Amino acid sequence: TVTFEPNEHPHRRYNPLLGKHVLVSPHRTKRPWKGQTEAPVLTKLPAYDPECYLCPGNARSGGDRNPKYTETFVFENDFPALLSDPLPSMPDIHPSSDSSDSSNPTASFFESRPVRGRCKVICFHPRHDLTLARMDEEDIVHVVEGWRGIYEEEGAMLRSTGGGDEAEGHVQIFENRGAMMGASAPHPHGQVWSLSYVPDEPATTLYHLEKHAQTAPEPPADHPRGPDGRPSLLVSYAWEEVKRKERVVEIDEDSGWVAVVPFWATWPYEILLLPYKRHISSLCGLTPEETRGLAKVLKRVLVRFDNLFSCPFPYSMGIHQAPLPPLASKPDSSASIHFHFYPPLLRSASVRKFLVGFEMLGEAQRDLTPEQAAEKLRSVSDVHYLERQQ
Amino acid sequence: TVTFEPNEHPHRRYNPLLGKHVLVSPHRTKRPWKGQTEAPVLTKLPAYDPECYLCPGNARSGGDRNPKYTETFVFENDFPALLSDPLPSMPDIHPSSDSSDSSNPTASFFESRPVRGRCKVICFHPRHDLTLARMDEEDIVHVVEGWRGIYEEEGAMLRSTGGGDEAEGHVQIFENRGAMMGASAPHPHGQVWSLSYVPDEPATTLYHLEKHAQTAPEPPADHPRGPDGRPSLLVSYAWEEVKRKERVVEIDEDSGWVAVVPFWATWPYEILLLPYKRHISSLCGLTPEETRGLAKVLKRVLVRFDNLFSCPFPYSMGIHQAPLPPLASKPDSSASIHFHFYPPLLRSASVRKFLVGFEMLGEAQRDLTPEQAAEKLRSVSDVHYLERQQ
Ligand SMILES: O=P(O)(O)O[C@H]1O[C@H](CO)[C@@H](O)[C@H](O)[C@H]1O
Ligand SMILES: O=P(O)(O)O[C@H]1O[C@H](CO)[C@@H](O)[C@H](O)[C@H]1O
Repeated sequence: TVTFEPNEHPHRRYNPLLGKHVLVSPHRTKRPWKGQTEAPVLTKLPAYDPECYLCPGNARSGGDRNPKYTETFVFENDFPALLSDPLPSMPDIHPSSDSSDSSNPTASFFESRPVRGRCKVICFHPRHDLTLARMDEEDIVHVVEGWRGIYEEEGAMLRSTGGGDEAEGHVQIFENRGAMMGASAPHPHGQVWSLSYVPDEPATTLYHLEKHAQTAPEPPADHPRGPDGRPSLLVSYAWEEVKRKERVVEIDEDSGWVAVVPFWATWPYEILLLPYKRHISSLCGLTPEETRGLAKVLKRVLVRFDNLFSCPFPYSMGIHQAPLPPLASKPDSSASIHFHFYPPLLRSASVRKFLVGFEMLGEAQRDLTPEQAAEKLRSVSDVHYLERQQ
Repeated sequence: TVTFEPNEHPHRRYNPLLGKHVLVSPHRTKRPWKGQTEAPVLTKLPAYDPECYLCPGNARSGGDRNPKYTETFVFENDFPALLSDPLPSMPDIHPSSDSSDSSNPTASFFESRPVRGRCKVICFHPRHDLTLARMDEEDIVHVVEGWRGIYEEEGAMLRSTGGGDEAEGHVQIFENRGAMMGASAPHPHGQVWSLSYVPDEPATTLYHLEKHAQTAPEPPADHPRGPDGRPSLLVSYAWEEVKRKERVVEIDEDSGWVAVVPFWATWPYEILLLPYKRHISSLCGLTPEETRGLAKVLKRVLVRFDNLFSCPFPYSMGIHQAPLPPLASKPDSSASIHFHFYPPLLRSASVRKFLVGFEMLGEAQRDLTPEQAAEKLRSVSDVHYLERQQ
């Protein structure tokens, strides 16, 4: 009998954050690709673009004019997916219901609930032609501080205006980078959507983190613990990854951040960036040294991404952390801060992974192992390709 | 106070098949689109393409030559994501583990399990330039019969060779249509991946169907029931949709199939196609009249899709039905057959919906209501635009 070899045999892995699986088909990258390829990205952008609605001093579609900002700049999205108006009241009978019988058991198929929130945009830098990967560490520290400011401010906003039926709210910080990921402007920027409830992905993650804190066996003695000495799923996991090394892409030992291709990664070069030396629930809990270390590791990961296929690597990135109202009121929270990076490219700057048919109807599927992906990311230069060409 | 108006106010809906939510932002389609647009699709294809590896009589990359088939043609994928070899044995220590202590609680982060399966391709028609939308109803009946044949055959295969630790298997029938959905050849074809386990999406659906059968309150007297007279989530839902009409796109009253934009749709023009008059667990349970009715409704839905933006509408489509071993052995199964259609386009043939940042990190989000989408699909012609131009 043949012995299982993860780099050769199709297998299935478990994602303990979401309780889902990924099918790994390591032999599959051998197939030839005849499908869609992506247009090359223009890398020569001007430092200032008079047509860009995010550049300093320019006018936006909503009519407002941006200040001549010099670090980061935050404004409310002119086309928000959420509105901060008071919640509308629900009619007694759901408008799409043709029955006034409220005991009708089929009514439960047609449940909707008004929600409230706010959408903000954060420009990372005044220069139109930069990306996080090419910004100075000091500039990225400003971005992290900007995120933290919005997180605190939105928490206060949701708290002061009340959260409707929901006790908790959530602040989703994210960046869609590159046209392939739906970004409609190349100017370096991210978004923040604050909501009067905790959406599915963070809610599922929080459920698994809390379950682990309550039911996991006593972790090995060397593992850092969560609040009240309870097991912390993510710190334990990160700690083990640092010991095993094979999926580690970047590490900063001083500040305690590590970036890995998670064991259960779905996207070919997916990255999970998290603290491994202590449990931290949110951006509010970072020391100045941790903030700086985070900026350093963030930049290094993004430089490796860009160097992999010598292109501005597209991705969606975002932060999962403690829900609102803020942690101060919940010091025992099992929530722990972590960054997800979901980049679509598979083989080159122009060939992406399609998560389609089987992936939409069956489950996530990947074509190279997370260990192979981490190895490739470690093997590229840590100097940005555009800086080497200069 | 303002009263809730689903076509105006952001709200959240519940998907009872997956236990997930979707954020609906109906006001959001007003925003201008400056992001990526898709290349137009060449609609004039030859009836036969000597370079196509799916056309009758042509050679495939694996070296085999296709027969001169005249209806449908099924073969094993030359680059399968799954292998039907016997399962490799697991080493005592997981190869990526650096600890021989099997009681190590952190080992559970690094679980992988070898899986077995088979990948097949089904050519829908010998003609290179057709799509399901433009095939005759009779030809689509052949496709449905082809799917049924594979479902039965793969069931027998998984059963005879044993399913490893898993008691059940799954046959995922799907079609990726269009380059935007990762299809690497325009020739009309679908795929079938058979697995030695039930993947996440159908497993979650089965869980919710069974839970409903066990715990739902007694349905109204007019509702068709599932096996043993138990409530059937999907038949009850479809029955209510037929009564309410607002989300119905196509219906065949004779054979009892209905196509709706589900109340909880994620994709802008997502469709759920299912029987509404009786509970049917799989393709094996269809009467000849139901097979023909299914072909009819399938075609009509796809004609409306193509007519919406006058283009070959891209989508991933697939069937969820009873797991294997087949239903005959499980006559009380709460599994019920349904077809999901996930099309990416939002505004036009060239502007898609990006499910990125917030959708990957938060939860599904849509920009027009399912009711608005159904209305648009109903308002287009039911004659294919290419046939009208002739
Ligand atoms: O097998 P194909 O059609 O070449 O590949 C396509 O469908 C598969 C199943 O949904 C996906 O895993 C691939 O990413 C996609 O490109
Ligand atoms: O708000 P943007 O950047 O215009 O829009 C982009 O990000 C949003 C949040 O992930 C998505 O809902 C949109 O589909 C995408 O195009």
